[in-house]
Amino acid sequence: MRNNDGNLVFERTPYISGYASVVGKKEGEGPLRDYYDRIIHDSYAGKDTFEQAESELMNTAVRVALNKGEFTQHDIDLACCGDLLNQCVASSFAMRSYAIPYAGVYGACSTMALSMILSATAIESGAAKRAVCAASSHYCTAERQYRFPLEYGSQRPPTAQWTVTGSGACILEKAGDSHNLLNHHTELKSNIPPSSGDDPLLKENHRESQTPYLHSARLGRIIDFQITDQNNMGAAMAPAVVKIGIKNNGIKHGIKP
Amino acid sequence: MRNNDGNLVFERTPYISGYASVVGKKEGEGPLRDYYDRIIHDSYAGKDTFEQAESELMNTAVRVALNKGEFTQHDIDLACCGDLLNQCVASSFAMRSYAIPYAGVYGACSTMALSMILSATAIESGAAKRAVCAASSHYCTAERQYRFPLEYGSQRPPTAQWTVTGSGACILEKAGDSHNLLNHHTELKSNIPPSSGDDPLLKENHRESQTPYLHSARLGRIIDFQITDQNNMGAAMAPAVVKIGIKNNGIKHGIKP
Repeated sequence: MRNNDGNLVFERTPYISGYASVVGKKEGEGPLRDYYDRIIHDSYAGKDTFEQAESELMNTAVRVALNKGEFTQHDIDLACCGDLLNQCVASSFAMRSYAIPYAGVYGACSTMALSMILSATAIESGAAKRAVCAASSHYCTAERQYRFPLEYGSQRPPTAQWTVTGSGACILEKAGDSHNLLNHHTELKSNIPPSSGDDPLLKENHRESQTPYLHSARLGRIIDFQITDQNNMGAAMAPAVVKIGIKNNGIKHGIKP
Repeated sequence: MRNNDGNLVFERTPYISGYASVVGKKEGEGPLRDYYDRIIHDSYAGKDTFEQAESELMNTAVRVALNKGEFTQHDIDLACCGDLLNQCVASSFAMRSYAIPYAGVYGACSTMALSMILSATAIESGAAKRAVCAASSHYCTAERQYRFPLEYGSQRPPTAQWTVTGSGACILEKAGDSHNLLNHHTELKSNIPPSSGDDPLLKENHRESQTPYLHSARLGRIIDFQITDQNNMGAAMAPAVVKIGIKNNGIKHGIKP
């Protein structure tokens, strides 16, 4: 793995060997409805509180991702999970039913990216061969957490954002280690050169097998423009996106702001 | 780096090249008072709220750690920080004044260990040469968060634990990269063998120069015995310590439970 002036370039091509998305009713009625693994119509997901429901979404997403990848929990070396709740309770309660070494992360909207970056770093270091990454949110818990409990019946401005009810999970895996890999992937196992992230053959193989993999990443830093409108959290995040995501990172990759 | 059945063995001997501790009044009156870098007698640390005070403790700890290591923020590739507050606000507000790529972590009492493990993993992978790890807590914010706001004047049982008011920070660094290293350390820079974690020479050098370094680590998993006594959180953590820390890890290292 190279750190190219803040751009982390992965050399073991950590790729996604299992994934799942579990969403709520509203998401299940949207244009992406055919792509979700589970649509749960009950906001409580059969539990007593919205927070327990969110935890259940993540628990289900991890279970489905493991199943789709044909893994058991014992195949996984690391879980990197987070959510928006106090003390990341959705994640820790979701993951207590799995016997997987656990790292809680908090990145707000960037939690899924953060968990994938840290998991890929662990894979690059040799700490893990396979890691599960997961993040969750729930409209009803986020409203309580960041604005007002729904029970208050507060009015929201028409432009207010709507937090997703759902959880996504994926299994990240070191190239060459999966029982799911195509043969020509397996051949790469024994000797992946340090520059394999830019290896045209490896890229071609990934493309052929339709396996998404992590090429590079850049960890953000905190840029605060003192935005305090709780109904417009996008504005709070935009400066970091411009500074880190577009100006620093995009230009290096030939993307114009 | 090797993952030996869950024991992560570091091979680049990530070592501590800067550190600081900043504590509150009560800690500053205790038996360790001579070892702290700063003792802040004002519970508010000159701020308006206890939460802002906690954030200030971490900000100070990171600044002092950088200074003691003779680093600037631009020498650091990664910050891995966490605390006990909702959405890890102490950490994110503390770190917004540093231009360092930031990963928020949540591990409750294990936050400092978690941030050091993830930072060391990043160093092992090549993602970072130097990382700052930090964690904080504050008696007054923790009481509000986990029990009752102090303003209520609730009575606590005499056996209730007392959350530390303080923050610790350290700089973890890949062996051989520091301008602070002794000469015989620097000689090791160019060619650290994969097994250097067990290299007696390297160990000897570390011991000679009194530089603490990370040898190995084990990430815990969540073990829940349904303890709900908010005044005895130690009982909630004990099962994981026994299972992961002593039974799994200790025995491997010849430590008897």
